[in-house]
Amino acid sequence: MNQQAEWIWYPGDFEVWLNEKISVRRKTRGAIFPPFWRLDQHYRSVVYRLTYILDKEEEISINTEGEFAAYLSGFDNQRQSKSTITLPAGNHTLLITVYNSLNVPALYISGKSISTGSHWEVSHNYKKWVSVGKGSFYDSSLSPSQFRLETSEQQPLIVGASGETGLIADFGKETFGYLQLHNLIGNGTVTLYYGESLEEANDKAYCETIDIIEVGSGISSYTNPFSRAFRYVNIEPEAGSNIRLGSVSMLYEYAPVEYYGQFRSSNERLNQIWDTSIYTLHLNTREFFFDGIKRDRWVWSGDAYQSFLMNYYSFFDQEITKRTLIALRGKNPVETHINTILDYSFYWFISIQDYYMYTGDEAFIRAHYDNIVVLMDFCLTRINDAGMVEGMEEDWVFVDWNDLDNRGEVSVIQILFCRSLEAMSSFASIVEDKAREIQYSSMGTELKKKLFETFWKDDLGGFVHQRHQGVLSTQITKYPNMFAVLYGYLDAAQSEKVRKQVLVNDEIQKIKTPYMRFFELAALCEIGEHPYVMGEILDYWGGMLDLGVTTFWEEYNPKLSGPEHYAMYGSRYGKSLCHAWGASPIYLLGKYFLGVSPLTPGYQTYVIQPHLGGLEWIEGTVPTALGDLNLYMDKLTIKIQAAGGKGYLRILSSVVPICMGASVSSIGEGSYEVVIDKHGYEYHIQG
Amino acid sequence: MNQQAEWIWYPGDFEVWLNEKISVRRKTRGAIFPPFWRLDQHYRSVVYRLTYILDKEEEISINTEGEFAAYLSGFDNQRQSKSTITLPAGNHTLLITVYNSLNVPALYISGKSISTGSHWEVSHNYKKWVSVGKGSFYDSSLSPSQFRLETSEQQPLIVGASGETGLIADFGKETFGYLQLHNLIGNGTVTLYYGESLEEANDKAYCETIDIIEVGSGISSYTNPFSRAFRYVNIEPEAGSNIRLGSVSMLYEYAPVEYYGQFRSSNERLNQIWDTSIYTLHLNTREFFFDGIKRDRWVWSGDAYQSFLMNYYSFFDQEITKRTLIALRGKNPVETHINTILDYSFYWFISIQDYYMYTGDEAFIRAHYDNIVVLMDFCLTRINDAGMVEGMEEDWVFVDWNDLDNRGEVSVIQILFCRSLEAMSSFASIVEDKAREIQYSSMGTELKKKLFETFWKDDLGGFVHQRHQGVLSTQITKYPNMFAVLYGYLDAAQSEKVRKQVLVNDEIQKIKTPYMRFFELAALCEIGEHPYVMGEILDYWGGMLDLGVTTFWEEYNPKLSGPEHYAMYGSRYGKSLCHAWGASPIYLLGKYFLGVSPLTPGYQTYVIQPHLGGLEWIEGTVPTALGDLNLYMDKLTIKIQAAGGKGYLRILSSVVPICMGASVSSIGEGSYEVVIDKHGYEYHIQG
Repeated sequence: MNQQAEWIWYPGDFEVWLNEKISVRRKTRGAIFPPFWRLDQHYRSVVYRLTYILDKEEEISINTEGEFAAYLSGFDNQRQSKSTITLPAGNHTLLITVYNSLNVPALYISGKSISTGSHWEVSHNYKKWVSVGKGSFYDSSLSPSQFRLETSEQQPLIVGASGETGLIADFGKETFGYLQLHNLIGNGTVTLYYGESLEEANDKAYCETIDIIEVGSGISSYTNPFSRAFRYVNIEPEAGSNIRLGSVSMLYEYAPVEYYGQFRSSNERLNQIWDTSIYTLHLNTREFFFDGIKRDRWVWSGDAYQSFLMNYYSFFDQEITKRTLIALRGKNPVETHINTILDYSFYWFISIQDYYMYTGDEAFIRAHYDNIVVLMDFCLTRINDAGMVEGMEEDWVFVDWNDLDNRGEVSVIQILFCRSLEAMSSFASIVEDKAREIQYSSMGTELKKKLFETFWKDDLGGFVHQRHQGVLSTQITKYPNMFAVLYGYLDAAQSEKVRKQVLVNDEIQKIKTPYMRFFELAALCEIGEHPYVMGEILDYWGGMLDLGVTTFWEEYNPKLSGPEHYAMYGSRYGKSLCHAWGASPIYLLGKYFLGVSPLTPGYQTYVIQPHLGGLEWIEGTVPTALGDLNLYMDKLTIKIQAAGGKGYLRILSSVVPICMGASVSSIGEGSYEVVIDKHGYEYHIQG
Repeated sequence: MNQQAEWIWYPGDFEVWLNEKISVRRKTRGAIFPPFWRLDQHYRSVVYRLTYILDKEEEISINTEGEFAAYLSGFDNQRQSKSTITLPAGNHTLLITVYNSLNVPALYISGKSISTGSHWEVSHNYKKWVSVGKGSFYDSSLSPSQFRLETSEQQPLIVGASGETGLIADFGKETFGYLQLHNLIGNGTVTLYYGESLEEANDKAYCETIDIIEVGSGISSYTNPFSRAFRYVNIEPEAGSNIRLGSVSMLYEYAPVEYYGQFRSSNERLNQIWDTSIYTLHLNTREFFFDGIKRDRWVWSGDAYQSFLMNYYSFFDQEITKRTLIALRGKNPVETHINTILDYSFYWFISIQDYYMYTGDEAFIRAHYDNIVVLMDFCLTRINDAGMVEGMEEDWVFVDWNDLDNRGEVSVIQILFCRSLEAMSSFASIVEDKAREIQYSSMGTELKKKLFETFWKDDLGGFVHQRHQGVLSTQITKYPNMFAVLYGYLDAAQSEKVRKQVLVNDEIQKIKTPYMRFFELAALCEIGEHPYVMGEILDYWGGMLDLGVTTFWEEYNPKLSGPEHYAMYGSRYGKSLCHAWGASPIYLLGKYFLGVSPLTPGYQTYVIQPHLGGLEWIEGTVPTALGDLNLYMDKLTIKIQAAGGKGYLRILSSVVPICMGASVSSIGEGSYEVVIDKHGYEYHIQG
């Protein structure tokens, strides 16, 4: 019982509170730009509960965020609010009411045998009691509201003059943090014009981000209280003022994640793509997984779905993943889809299934099952007579930035729905909700059947895009077909048709966003097109490198040139030049080239199917729930060292591979399987 | 279009925000005691919308509580946050996003032709748009978060010494506000022990309310920042300190209501009961209608139901009534009954029906119809197979503080449910929701039938109390029977049985709270027992006056004596000595002795059925939605002057009454009706 005390709260409250704070930090030329969906809030007044048995009385110390009252069950007229109280011996139920309108009403109690931890319960109405939420806050003096990312001071690479008295600073690469001005002299205002590009920082009338600061009398130093995304900043004292600028620096702000995932290869351009990807992902990995650091600085479920997957091959950070999943779901009532987007509710269910597979964290499923079900219930109220989901009046059916007709029954949406139902069935199974397990499972089976009956066109080699008011489209798009491949919904013959007639067919509408290229290239890997995918990675992401990018973009169209690249959403610098979904090579290289992925939850068993994709050699590390897996591969050799679990290396080889200390078995058609189950041992496989 | 600008907000947000603030002010010996139900919150981020047509551009000034951005529809990248902006001419939609985590994100715009008012819409998610809420905030510099009640300084009646250096102040009557100490000298702490009774203020170990204040060096003056309920306060400097107390006063805090309702009679004791009642009600009429000013300082639906009714015969304050109704309902989702009490959800529906009848405010019904339906939907999910509501696991079935078995189907609960369904049907009719109008109406009819079939026992002369697990109780209680009378559910023969066998039958369990005495005495008036009721008022409330009360109590048991009276809920001073439900004579005298009540919404037509109840004369004023109605009555004469509407004076008389300027008609059995429809004219009726 004498465990380490930690801060506890109503489950979800900290995540929802933090999401509100960070969601409203986006500004466009000084004006706020909060998300358009409902911003949820923590419960103001909660009560914590612990039933204990003590042989003798015990003194406990109480820390709370907010006002509190402590009392024993049945004695609520004998409340006390002293920070040290003595609990009587015997069998009692201790209750602590905490109220806080501004921050999460969190609790931290430490005593010899009684401390706060996951065994406490909490209620927001004295009726429904649930297990508390928590998040690695072990220091009584560091309460949840004090949560901050790390910072470190960074210097610009180049500082030049701008106008008569101004400066322009280039930090050498896209960055994020708090601008600092040192040795400021004079009086008046200084305007900061930020740019992700040099053009933007120099375009005072149209750059997206500005800050205006007041400079007082005397020499002063200044740290901007607002964090901004930029590479360049143009610093301009008020015209006619006596202001003299000294030096410039910034406080770089970042999430203290570990770079567990590693990748190197014989191709330096590819290595640079990996490095740029991981930096792009890291910048967007903050309190939550963001879409972009300049814009929107919000948490979007579709974007997060990809960041989660990249995270499993890089930082393997469970805290940020859980925080993001909880924040996206928010509080009840569910009035719209997540982010108001139909597809984004489904990505959320699927993301949880992925989280469970990669981490094995069953407790998370149990803790959030009720909220998961409520969102699915909402989705199920929006099914049409054919059993399919459509965008209803208030719904945004996104799919992708492209010229798409997403009215009516969109086939890719049904695929996401189907996958979500499969995920729901597995969650229901975990919590032993037998009735729902069967219900979701049979709905999924039924829907999959309808999907093929309705949208599959064997002659066209794939699914058509949609059906609206009974009229089936004849347009084949990549979206449903690549997701069907990814989720294993096609047999070998169907996959081959899709490959040839859809995925590598130039006549099919092209995908313009790294967002959907993620799934397109993953699907191509699923059907063995590794060399093709390697070519695409080198070409598409390499194309951005050729433009001098230091982080990957929200959208990249090789046909544009110069500042044309920066425009989007009707704004000259509207495009995000540091967008998480731009970092997908992390996932593609980790999952499909290093080739590692879990077969059962938490990597208890997993598969390794490495591919060179035409390179001389690759090597790297894939983090797993059981520790790191290191792999090296060239045309003759594979070396593997794993920290846990039971791995199945599957390789194609013209000869029977040889591996000291491991059994090699043929699995047919020139394929061999090597079992990797000695932890810390370096397997050498010669093929 | 050039109307007076006013502050607007998301409907309900101000009320919910204010309710949260005031609900957490209760303290017990310094420790917080927030309500145990969920405290709801305003939406943090909302967007206001107005579509306008302007011939030429116009400058508007923008005031908000919180950060804001203004932009035109389709131009959300061109946001601005200046307090004065120029709107372009033409047909545009102006959008103002406001964010505020602490206070309600309210908006005030004034321009030549464009100003904030009820024609604006607002959304919390850019999907669902509703008409804004507002509440008579016309001054741009007095924003909603600055809302405060009025205060005035009051002096104690008596100040005496307490201990060696302390003082005890008696303010002469129960009061509420901020204690003030003047000319304080010395250093250390001063403890304030408050008492609604002298015993409580002198009982330092057990009094319910204390404040500990720090006194600094030098002479100082101090106003307690927390408002308290008390008559006496015992002011004690820290032992051994050099503190010297100067004088004591208080800032009395009150709602600035008008005393429209008046009552005087030939009985001085009754007049004192009226005066004490109105003072009791006024003290509890604050930001909302409270239950009691010391305890709980919360908004309870059952208590408010009575305060609303008293208010119609006294202050006729619509703002506080609306505010209370909105705060009680809170936000979605509905997870429990109002205040977690089954009966209290029903009192809420019925209170809205009353509000509509007394005020004719159809707009309120329209604005809150959706929320009303959602609460009824919640209730309808809790019906058993017999179509009746029962307390489910989480529900509190209160009825009254008495020895009652409220398990299973409680007959009085079905009566409240039935009345609620009738109210719902009328709300549905107002908003032309035909399907629900019919549904609720037929459910009500069906339920009433079942009520009689199940609980009415003709031989026992009334309804039995409940049925649990199929076993019908044989106990007759007053509760179902008095509500059946009040709601007109009984025919003449049934009423007479109930009167004789239940209401005036000493063998039936007695009611101990003024709360339920309210309905008991109202029911007795409904069946013509005015002299009996007058006797009860003089005896029960007069009994409290004999104890020297200055406000009426939460509970009064004439059999107790001395400090025994003050105990409740296991606390020595747990009883509230200033409880709104103690003030019911206001309603009884106004509705059943002055005899005025609306027949159609908003007093368009109304009835006057005055009764002397054995007194020589009565006179008074009843406020109506159309102005005051003044009435005088003695054994020979009635004088009436009304400001609006069409009144029907109904009187029993042995001779045909004479009235100059009015038509008198016989309505059978010695009853006569006089039409009162000349406004401002004093009718004299001789009987």
